Amino acid sequence: MDRAQLSEELRRIVGPRSVVDNPDALMTYDSDGCVMDLHDPHIVVLPSATEQVAAVVKLAARAGVPVVPRGAGTGLSGGATPMHGGIVITTSRMNKILEFDARNERVRVQPGVINFELSQYLNQYGYQFAADPSSQKACTIGGNIANNSGGPHCIKYGVTGSHVLGLQVVLADGSVIWTGDGTPDAPGYDLTGMLVGSEGTLALVTEAWLKATRLAESTRVVMALFDDIAGTAATVSAVIAGGFLPAALEVMDRLAIKAVNDAYKMGLPESAGAALIIEVDGVDDGLDELLAEIVEICHRHGAIEVRPARTAAEQTQVWAARKNAFGAMGRLAPTYYLVDTVVPRTRLPYMMEQVQLISQTFNLPIANVFHAGDGNLHPIVLFDRRDPDQLHRAHEAVTQVMKLSIEQGGVISGEHGIGMEKQDYMPLLFNDDDLGAMAAVHESFDPTDLINPGKIFPRKQPGHNLAMQRRAKVNLGDEEENEFDKATRVIKAQGDNVWI
Amino acid sequence: MDRAQLSEELRRIVGPRSVVDNPDALMTYDSDGCVMDLHDPHIVVLPSATEQVAAVVKLAARAGVPVVPRGAGTGLSGGATPMHGGIVITTSRMNKILEFDARNERVRVQPGVINFELSQYLNQYGYQFAADPSSQKACTIGGNIANNSGGPHCIKYGVTGSHVLGLQVVLADGSVIWTGDGTPDAPGYDLTGMLVGSEGTLALVTEAWLKATRLAESTRVVMALFDDIAGTAATVSAVIAGGFLPAALEVMDRLAIKAVNDAYKMGLPESAGAALIIEVDGVDDGLDELLAEIVEICHRHGAIEVRPARTAAEQTQVWAARKNAFGAMGRLAPTYYLVDTVVPRTRLPYMMEQVQLISQTFNLPIANVFHAGDGNLHPIVLFDRRDPDQLHRAHEAVTQVMKLSIEQGGVISGEHGIGMEKQDYMPLLFNDDDLGAMAAVHESFDPTDLINPGKIFPRKQPGHNLAMQRRAKVNLGDEEENEFDKATRVIKAQGDNVWI
Repeated sequence: MDRAQLSEELRRIVGPRSVVDNPDALMTYDSDGCVMDLHDPHIVVLPSATEQVAAVVKLAARAGVPVVPRGAGTGLSGGATPMHGGIVITTSRMNKILEFDARNERVRVQPGVINFELSQYLNQYGYQFAADPSSQKACTIGGNIANNSGGPHCIKYGVTGSHVLGLQVVLADGSVIWTGDGTPDAPGYDLTGMLVGSEGTLALVTEAWLKATRLAESTRVVMALFDDIAGTAATVSAVIAGGFLPAALEVMDRLAIKAVNDAYKMGLPESAGAALIIEVDGVDDGLDELLAEIVEICHRHGAIEVRPARTAAEQTQVWAARKNAFGAMGRLAPTYYLVDTVVPRTRLPYMMEQVQLISQTFNLPIANVFHAGDGNLHPIVLFDRRDPDQLHRAHEAVTQVMKLSIEQGGVISGEHGIGMEKQDYMPLLFNDDDLGAMAAVHESFDPTDLINPGKIFPRKQPGHNLAMQRRAKVNLGDEEENEFDKATRVIKAQGDNVWI
Repeated sequence: MDRAQLSEELRRIVGPRSVVDNPDALMTYDSDGCVMDLHDPHIVVLPSATEQVAAVVKLAARAGVPVVPRGAGTGLSGGATPMHGGIVITTSRMNKILEFDARNERVRVQPGVINFELSQYLNQYGYQFAADPSSQKACTIGGNIANNSGGPHCIKYGVTGSHVLGLQVVLADGSVIWTGDGTPDAPGYDLTGMLVGSEGTLALVTEAWLKATRLAESTRVVMALFDDIAGTAATVSAVIAGGFLPAALEVMDRLAIKAVNDAYKMGLPESAGAALIIEVDGVDDGLDELLAEIVEICHRHGAIEVRPARTAAEQTQVWAARKNAFGAMGRLAPTYYLVDTVVPRTRLPYMMEQVQLISQTFNLPIANVFHAGDGNLHPIVLFDRRDPDQLHRAHEAVTQVMKLSIEQGGVISGEHGIGMEKQDYMPLLFNDDDLGAMAAVHESFDPTDLINPGKIFPRKQPGHNLAMQRRAKVNLGDEEENEFDKATRVIKAQGDNVWI
């Protein structure tokens, strides 16, 4: 099948106005928010229904062409980058909220629904979709599912996976399955759990049953200011150790505060070395007392000032400062590299010291904006990618942060995924047996390696190699024993349980 | 390898006092709590360390002999029954709590630790293990992980899977991997999620990092009595719809109340048609007001009496009544068959009516004790298995309950697993594509079908057949296209992204 034939068949499936093959337009799809490596797709389709996605995947399987699912392209690890070209399947026209089942507190959506729009829709009924990434005004539910995305409120409400009840997916051969219908604890293997966070490398999500989470009756937000970031980290540990479960515990350091002020005139006090945003929610009765206890902990750990956000408008403003911090970085440097690692919460103060040392060592400013309650760091390395030396130093600094996170008992990705960005760092965390088990699962879903290929597994050890090694290892033993094994299987098939 | 050789090698691995091969003793291991079908193992080992489990699995793979993991044998779906004989690996000597990391609120355990003993241990530090099956005084953490077990408090705290951070498992070839170290959101595929609830058919759990959940500051328990079970179901729906999240919402019907009274002299009022146990917990301040609102809802839906458990001792007694209800059934009939299905919570009242009709149709008493808050039914069909006609009618009644649950948008298992008990019902819920995706995953972990074989998949469609069908379907296309596919792979391996 040549490119013209493929294009014609795709037009027949999704309609001529839902195919993009103009070379200039294709460049838009050469990457997501991770711009380390750019690859044009050969063609882009914009399906509007599950059947169309299934037909496209079936065609791609027949033609031996990769398919790459894409949401809003806000990902930061290159998950939507078509590493080997092929067909990019964009979900932007699969953006319907299909069904809200209030009595069972669940909602069924297509994957292209914007995270924020889903919450806005649910808000009118007193509900929300509880995972709230900073990119929520642009990112899609499908992308959230692919990356098992977090957000500031995940410390209390859990990451995306905690809110996915069941998925409709298209498998590698174009067949369509449901992994659950929203009823909790479906029997059989937990394919829902397997698919959430698999970065679009196992199957393509076409519908999802999600949990609708009731809005809290009341919410309080304060911003506590400290001389340095160590004070915020100590406070966070003390708050958790005290048995409190705030709805959010977010930290911004001096550089981040400055960037936000410059960009949005937020009027945050630049004399402070760090700001800790604390949100508590729940039944209104008793909430002020609860907050007072937390504020007391802030003071005990050196807070120089605690500013309450007294109105809903003020609360929105505090959150705008936090969620727009990444965008504001453009004021400080032409390029930033946002690292996403996790360490046990108790290791945060040490990590923060080390990040400052790394900043000095590589002579690059590093800002910090992060989910302190989850131990999820987001050091932001600021540099100019046009300067090869700076680019090199930025990569070195990022590698250092990842290595240190692992040394401290942490992991190399919190919520942004591995994609292509971190694939070569996977062996820092997993040995060949660990990766082999994952590769075997991958192969079971995608035996011809055509679903978003070239991601997650190290470039030197692609998934199919690891899976092959693993198979060789499991089918061990000499021929005589294999014969025995065969004999056993025959006996078992006869329903007899005697193998000896 | 003959039986004597195998036995000798196993003795060398685990020590002579940790091998059971006396035929009488082996009968103890012919089933778990599900006594539908009995199969003796050929040998039983009681390892005490991961290395021993790994060595046993490696030996079994070499000899082509099945291995079957077993906890306390309290399972209700035959998950621990050695369908094809082989080596039963019992975790009773792997019962150590290895490490409690209070600052990061996690605990590392061996799989043979008893659920209740873990909670008792954690209680002294102000924590608990939050999943609490009725069998918690006997069942093991390994069994809870295998079945993704629930319990009365799961409506608020979530099932076992919500509390598992990472697992150390032995794979089919005897290699040992960790699926996570307790840090949330590990990168790569979510093997932890995949393994939880896989009923010991993919790998053998040898250690687990679990979440420690802080004990609530305060708890209130009441028992509301109603004329009939419909009143309890309506109350439960209204409580949830009102935005309350109680720690437990448990129902017992008239027969269950009678059984508990007969067995334990609980003094529950037998005039009542049904009892609803409600527990709320949280910060003490405001808890009485919260409970008062819920009690008000009970009265609005026809509660004839609401009895508070005023002291900790009274609370313990109420929970003892509920958790011992299954044991008390022996007073009512020689045999009981406990059905475990789930429906959307709003379908509970209808299901309860239907269960009563089924009881009349098949002329067998059916008691009900269940997790109403989760929509998790537990109709208990009472009969005498020595009477073939009663046995037949019991099976018919159970099948009816499962079919009805599916019709109402539910599933055939809530927390007891599929095992061998429900394997032939799986096609009611899943089509061949659904099962094929699960079978492919199964094959990726257990390609020679030696880990707890003969479970979950229907007897007429064993996992390896389904996986084979699935492979044939994915590798579709004629030879020419396969050649094209191969060519694509070669190009990809060269790092070039041009496939056309």
